[in-house]
Amino acid sequence: MIDILLSGANGRMGRVLQTMIAQQLTMQVVAGVDREAFEADFPTYQTIADCQVAVDVIIDFSHYTAVPAILEYAVEKKIPVVIATTGLTDEVKTQLFAASEKTAVFFSANMSLGINLLAKAIREITPVLEDEFNIEIVEKHHNQKKDSPSGTALLLADAVNDAVSTKKTYIYGRHGNDLENPLSELGIHAVRGGTIPGEHTVIYAGPDEVIELNHLALSRNIFASGAVKAAKYIRTKNTGLYNMEKLIDEK
Amino acid sequence: MIDILLSGANGRMGRVLQTMIAQQLTMQVVAGVDREAFEADFPTYQTIADCQVAVDVIIDFSHYTAVPAILEYAVEKKIPVVIATTGLTDEVKTQLFAASEKTAVFFSANMSLGINLLAKAIREITPVLEDEFNIEIVEKHHNQKKDSPSGTALLLADAVNDAVSTKKTYIYGRHGNDLENPLSELGIHAVRGGTIPGEHTVIYAGPDEVIELNHLALSRNIFASGAVKAAKYIRTKNTGLYNMEKLIDEK
Amino acid sequence: MIDILLSGANGRMGRVLQTMIAQQLTMQVVAGVDREAFEADFPTYQTIADCQVAVDVIIDFSHYTAVPAILEYAVEKKIPVVIATTGLTDEVKTQLFAASEKTAVFFSANMSLGINLLAKAIREITPVLEDEFNIEIVEKHHNQKKDSPSGTALLLADAVNDAVSTKKTYIYGRHGNDLENPLSELGIHAVRGGTIPGEHTVIYAGPDEVIELNHLALSRNIFASGAVKAAKYIRTKNTGLYNMEKLIDEK
Amino acid sequence: MIDILLSGANGRMGRVLQTMIAQQLTMQVVAGVDREAFEADFPTYQTIADCQVAVDVIIDFSHYTAVPAILEYAVEKKIPVVIATTGLTDEVKTQLFAASEKTAVFFSANMSLGINLLAKAIREITPVLEDEFNIEIVEKHHNQKKDSPSGTALLLADAVNDAVSTKKTYIYGRHGNDLENPLSELGIHAVRGGTIPGEHTVIYAGPDEVIELNHLALSRNIFASGAVKAAKYIRTKNTGLYNMEKLIDEK
Repeated sequence: MIDILLSGANGRMGRVLQTMIAQQLTMQVVAGVDREAFEADFPTYQTIADCQVAVDVIIDFSHYTAVPAILEYAVEKKIPVVIATTGLTDEVKTQLFAASEKTAVFFSANMSLGINLLAKAIREITPVLEDEFNIEIVEKHHNQKKDSPSGTALLLADAVNDAVSTKKTYIYGRHGNDLENPLSELGIHAVRGGTIPGEHTVIYAGPDEVIELNHLALSRNIFASGAVKAAKYIRTKNTGLYNMEKLIDEK
Repeated sequence: MIDILLSGANGRMGRVLQTMIAQQLTMQVVAGVDREAFEADFPTYQTIADCQVAVDVIIDFSHYTAVPAILEYAVEKKIPVVIATTGLTDEVKTQLFAASEKTAVFFSANMSLGINLLAKAIREITPVLEDEFNIEIVEKHHNQKKDSPSGTALLLADAVNDAVSTKKTYIYGRHGNDLENPLSELGIHAVRGGTIPGEHTVIYAGPDEVIELNHLALSRNIFASGAVKAAKYIRTKNTGLYNMEKLIDEK
Repeated sequence: MIDILLSGANGRMGRVLQTMIAQQLTMQVVAGVDREAFEADFPTYQTIADCQVAVDVIIDFSHYTAVPAILEYAVEKKIPVVIATTGLTDEVKTQLFAASEKTAVFFSANMSLGINLLAKAIREITPVLEDEFNIEIVEKHHNQKKDSPSGTALLLADAVNDAVSTKKTYIYGRHGNDLENPLSELGIHAVRGGTIPGEHTVIYAGPDEVIELNHLALSRNIFASGAVKAAKYIRTKNTGLYNMEKLIDEK
Repeated sequence: MIDILLSGANGRMGRVLQTMIAQQLTMQVVAGVDREAFEADFPTYQTIADCQVAVDVIIDFSHYTAVPAILEYAVEKKIPVVIATTGLTDEVKTQLFAASEKTAVFFSANMSLGINLLAKAIREITPVLEDEFNIEIVEKHHNQKKDSPSGTALLLADAVNDAVSTKKTYIYGRHGNDLENPLSELGIHAVRGGTIPGEHTVIYAGPDEVIELNHLALSRNIFASGAVKAAKYIRTKNTGLYNMEKLIDEK
């Protein structure tokens, strides 16, 4: 049984994780932390430092301002920790890298297994097609999303650019009468509408053939699901920095 | 048997039409016109005025500068004419409308049956979804295409705007951190790559459901094919202006 | 304010409807019925006959065995009723048609606005393409779905067949070495996997062009949403049978 | 300059190759073979044995009955040979493997770069998703295609099955009321319509996410294009059997 300390336990993703972990045969939440008091089947704390429960792994889905205290606790107690919180500042990331020298730390820009597999496929396919195929990304999200393109679209574009010999310039739309698409450009197109949780398509268009790699998220639960996988994976790891890419490569 | 006078007979689309009409049981090319001399199984002319062959319909796939002489000939001889040439100036369009008062003239911004059916579906669906669904268009074309978005994407966007009670503003991409997609916007996204002849997708994204209308052109022969349909349709028509929308409605 | 009597109020869809109606400005649940006792902000009953609350519309999302009592109550009190329960037997359907002669009854094989709009587009497009295009349907659902093809796929196939002059034969897959796809066949392909709530694609494949009409359900809430629209629509209707097709045509 | 002996030079694919090679800066056809006499800019032969022109690589796009003579010639003269002819019998394949012990022989079940890249992505992605995701294939081809599913769909299905620990059973459609999709099944769905040159989609559907790998052929020229790539690749190779998978891995 893997005993989990869940940070951000009463947030939207925290509650999804509570349900998801309750369905696991080999994992249970034994303690929860959240900024404001809440009730649960396990002991809860408003400050992680107050928690004396012995745990195997910490999963954090809180807020970037809460991350430093989580890392400190993980380092002090030598507990493997999964940081699934997004929007980390550079300062917090620096702390995270430092912490990974003292305990096992799992951190990925995107916690979805599927997106990381798409990135892996991109790394394999792109170098072969680089000379002849244009590469473009179309992403679709709900109409309330404020940032365009999505962080995930940029993650995929970066996966393309890491795989090519000549870096591409990102462009975010086309409008005019004297355009073409040279191989030096990578168009990223942000469609916004309705309640779409997220869809990303990487398009390789070449002479007489088109390859598309597509990922459709049906709900944001996939990030919780990725955190569960990460907790199982990191549980027996030594000090170091781990991510979805490594998890996939070891599968 | 429908006897066709083919204008622009030796151009790219003209040659496609020669082949396509040769496969028709009820249609044949009996005369051809092209700026430069060429050989064919039928009499050919460099100037339409020189042609004395009796014909049932004229199909024109030439150049906008050649269109006035074609229209003049059609009016004088009272022959139904299909103008499939693109890029007409406003001046030529005015001549075309005038000609349609004296003979039957067929003219559509897009000669493909499929695209016009998509426009028809848009006119039906849009008013019902207007209040709750965001509407966006993604189009894909080969990397040599200079204009973005495509004329066809604009035709489809206009079909949306003709069907809504509150007109939408077209935008051509998204990039930033403080955006949303209000119902007042219609995003048009131009993907460019490889040799894609043309793909257009109209996306209706609403609460928990997404409708997509998609048209894929596998070759530009669909424009020739549309011209053949137009010739059959207009053959028995009286004076007036006809287009694909009318052709479809009468099917 | 439209006062709703919600039947099946404590079932999965009933609870979705409670939440959805709570967000409406012009609609509220004033009474609920469910086979087993439950608590709510409104009076609840285990038998509809016990309910004396005055209501404007009944929405029923229960079980086909419960429908006759609902219809009886609606007829007796002359209340417009939306039957959104699925799996009605022919016997219950006969009762439903009889009831519609005494009060306004709304009943559709599929309560989603989007699917019904797809059916409408099919009715418009199919007759024009019938002679030259093959028509096929691909549908995708979660891996626990027991019936293939989906009822919705059959609804869309029937919309095709209602629109053609020569009826097509449905086939459910292809395997062999001496096949083709004559225009007399309509292939329906059932993909099953993961947790996909439902996707339906109608494909028109013809000479050098392909049109696809696609509907993606992101959750089954779209059926609740359709019931809310139906309740607003039927509220002022006279005796008669109504459905999504009529609702759309009057928009 | 790579000097090519083109076998099947006057067939459909042979003529495509003539045009394609003429556009290459570093490759030229210096001799052609075809069963029936034909005219070309290079010397032509009806029997390969008659050809005395010195060549660097042989490309064969003929008929399986012609392949043994081609292999014999290649072995005798120690010329690398690309066999792009399809439909080889087991007997011819045995001859091909034997020939590859005496000269460099390139042979792939599918000559398209894109399809082979899809197979590569399948080999990478499948093992990671095997335990939780259903895998299905949808393929679309023109309505004259007689075999279902396509050979390419089977190639992709086999790539899935080579990558999983528990082999899946292929099924070719679903129809019934008591079905599900267990992980032991792999559904292959053949859509037939119009003039579609070929589209293949591999679908991974799991908990709340769906990955699709899609390949669209816009024309059958991609097979000629693959043969040109293969000729460049095999030109300097020693004795042995080569294929698209190896070509890609060495890129």
